[in-house]
Amino acid sequence: MSSPFYLPKLGILGGGQLGRMLVQAAIPFGLDTAVLDPDTNAPCAGLTPQFIQGDLMNFETVYAFGKTVDILTIEFEHINTDALAQLESEGTCIYPQPHVIKTIQDKGLQKLFYKHHHIPTAPFKLISAPSELKNYPELFPAIQKTRTHGYDGKGVCSLPNINSLETAFTGLSVLEKHIDIHKEFALSIARNKNGDIALFPAVDLHFHAQNHILDTLFCPSDLDPNVLQTAQDIATTLITELNLIGLLAIEFFLCQDGSVLVNEIAPRPHNSGHHTLEGTKTSQFSQLIRAVLNLPLGVTDITKPSAMINLLGSDQHPHFLEKCLKIPEVYVHLYGKKQSKPLRKMGHITVLANTKQDLQTKIAHIKEWL
Amino acid sequence: MSSPFYLPKLGILGGGQLGRMLVQAAIPFGLDTAVLDPDTNAPCAGLTPQFIQGDLMNFETVYAFGKTVDILTIEFEHINTDALAQLESEGTCIYPQPHVIKTIQDKGLQKLFYKHHHIPTAPFKLISAPSELKNYPELFPAIQKTRTHGYDGKGVCSLPNINSLETAFTGLSVLEKHIDIHKEFALSIARNKNGDIALFPAVDLHFHAQNHILDTLFCPSDLDPNVLQTAQDIATTLITELNLIGLLAIEFFLCQDGSVLVNEIAPRPHNSGHHTLEGTKTSQFSQLIRAVLNLPLGVTDITKPSAMINLLGSDQHPHFLEKCLKIPEVYVHLYGKKQSKPLRKMGHITVLANTKQDLQTKIAHIKEWL
Repeated sequence: MSSPFYLPKLGILGGGQLGRMLVQAAIPFGLDTAVLDPDTNAPCAGLTPQFIQGDLMNFETVYAFGKTVDILTIEFEHINTDALAQLESEGTCIYPQPHVIKTIQDKGLQKLFYKHHHIPTAPFKLISAPSELKNYPELFPAIQKTRTHGYDGKGVCSLPNINSLETAFTGLSVLEKHIDIHKEFALSIARNKNGDIALFPAVDLHFHAQNHILDTLFCPSDLDPNVLQTAQDIATTLITELNLIGLLAIEFFLCQDGSVLVNEIAPRPHNSGHHTLEGTKTSQFSQLIRAVLNLPLGVTDITKPSAMINLLGSDQHPHFLEKCLKIPEVYVHLYGKKQSKPLRKMGHITVLANTKQDLQTKIAHIKEWL
Repeated sequence: MSSPFYLPKLGILGGGQLGRMLVQAAIPFGLDTAVLDPDTNAPCAGLTPQFIQGDLMNFETVYAFGKTVDILTIEFEHINTDALAQLESEGTCIYPQPHVIKTIQDKGLQKLFYKHHHIPTAPFKLISAPSELKNYPELFPAIQKTRTHGYDGKGVCSLPNINSLETAFTGLSVLEKHIDIHKEFALSIARNKNGDIALFPAVDLHFHAQNHILDTLFCPSDLDPNVLQTAQDIATTLITELNLIGLLAIEFFLCQDGSVLVNEIAPRPHNSGHHTLEGTKTSQFSQLIRAVLNLPLGVTDITKPSAMINLLGSDQHPHFLEKCLKIPEVYVHLYGKKQSKPLRKMGHITVLANTKQDLQTKIAHIKEWL
């Protein structure tokens, strides 16, 4: 007799740490998984029955991979969406849907989507050359962001004034007004095919000053309830208007004037949700599995206050692990990357505690040892 | 630069559900793993960079596998211990150590160990043929258990009196006095090379009446504090006297007369600890990883009251998963077994709730759907 718990085969486009934690979440559901990634040493290699090496931007590669699975999802949005659209037209379930990926992988289309749906976001214009700066004096001081393939502060530059021609770059980009930020926070939201929606608690984000990589987050955020409500309403509008099935991570600015703006969104698991592995009753990864299988979404309340610290490539103290694991309720997640490079995300640590004060004490110790 | 988080390679002997959950626990530690199992479709297949098909009782197979890893552990104690002893003498770290496995894999040696160390256990004699029953009238009504390879009620029979010659079997076995049990409970305990010890909360066990397979457990147990203290003292004595590095699961009888007896022990993750994946702050699987790496042991307090239900092979309701996952704080763990057989362990469900009453309500619903 074959197993009564037959579930479809899940393909994951991208085999980095997000794919790795998604593969881990798929195991308890008994799912058969396959992963496509350009790097034979990617964090997912060896952890899934089918790890395929291949280019995520190549039509044939993505199409051929997609034909071997029942459901496709992503850990990375820079994918050949023409191949996804073709697969979708031939019946493969793709969550998030190709039209959503297409919109979000291009920061220009993302910004136009916000504008069209009255989602508050920083004022912007789409440009392609530094010579256009002078047309938009009202946007300065400004940030220029490449429309595609930017991440973790890459493809982004600050432009103090319209004469910053040497700093600005040529290429399709978003010119965005610099916002005086009080703080940055994030919120993830999930939606299944039935249309059920589940919001994760908001988190406060703290970035490395120099390189704008996420350093630490705290959950739950200590946002004012009205601000939180505004953010939750925006999240619900976004996932509904995108008609997205899966997971949407939203990074917000809380401005000095108290207003809330959407900074960026990602239609997938996100670094701002890593604490959910221990800090909420359902993790972002399990929630995505539930969403793409059209299972009931899990409850997302916190288990306890939590914090997450990214471990970036650098010389950690040789007894770092031992020291960290002596602290109660510290959970280490290493990504199995063979090579360490400065600023490369090598892992993260989740810390649980009864109060934010206790979290801060634990984190202060851990940071001393990094 | 190679990763600063270098950790040794872990080999696991046995690739069933226990190995599968151990592989899952090894991933966040960034460990490279290898698994040896006779079944090419074992639950671990595909989830580890090296899944080797081979006979766990064959000296050459176990020895060759062991030479490819830095640390060896087990999910199953019926292993060729001569190969393990040879590997150990050549420098491989094996936790639990071969001498512990050798003692525990033979229920006769197990019972003699209890006797030697004054660990309370049911009165017994070692026999090899039904003709010996008549020598031990004081043990009747009795249970006869095969000394090796019994599990989940297999290799066990009830003998009402010394004339039960047709029910009794021939072969090395333990003849044990039948105990009038008030209830059965279990406790796991971990120990690392430093000698640090961590006790898990005790759990109440409920078995299927017919086949004596674990049906449901509740954590924490509602044992009287004195009984709990007795059990904890026994557990500490056992792991210390065995000089075991790793994990020890202990099944106890609480007798009608209030005394506590050790029923059986296992030097590895155990079905009585599956709820720890969500129900305690460190799971039995993560704890074993910490123990074999000689890392500080994790705290084992409960996160909330929990229960665990085994999913045995049978015809589950087609919408079983959907129904279960509608209940908050229900976690499904399927083992990815391709074939379902009656009574085969196909997965388990952990349920969390604020009170035991709430746990029982949730469990009653889930059992209706099984």
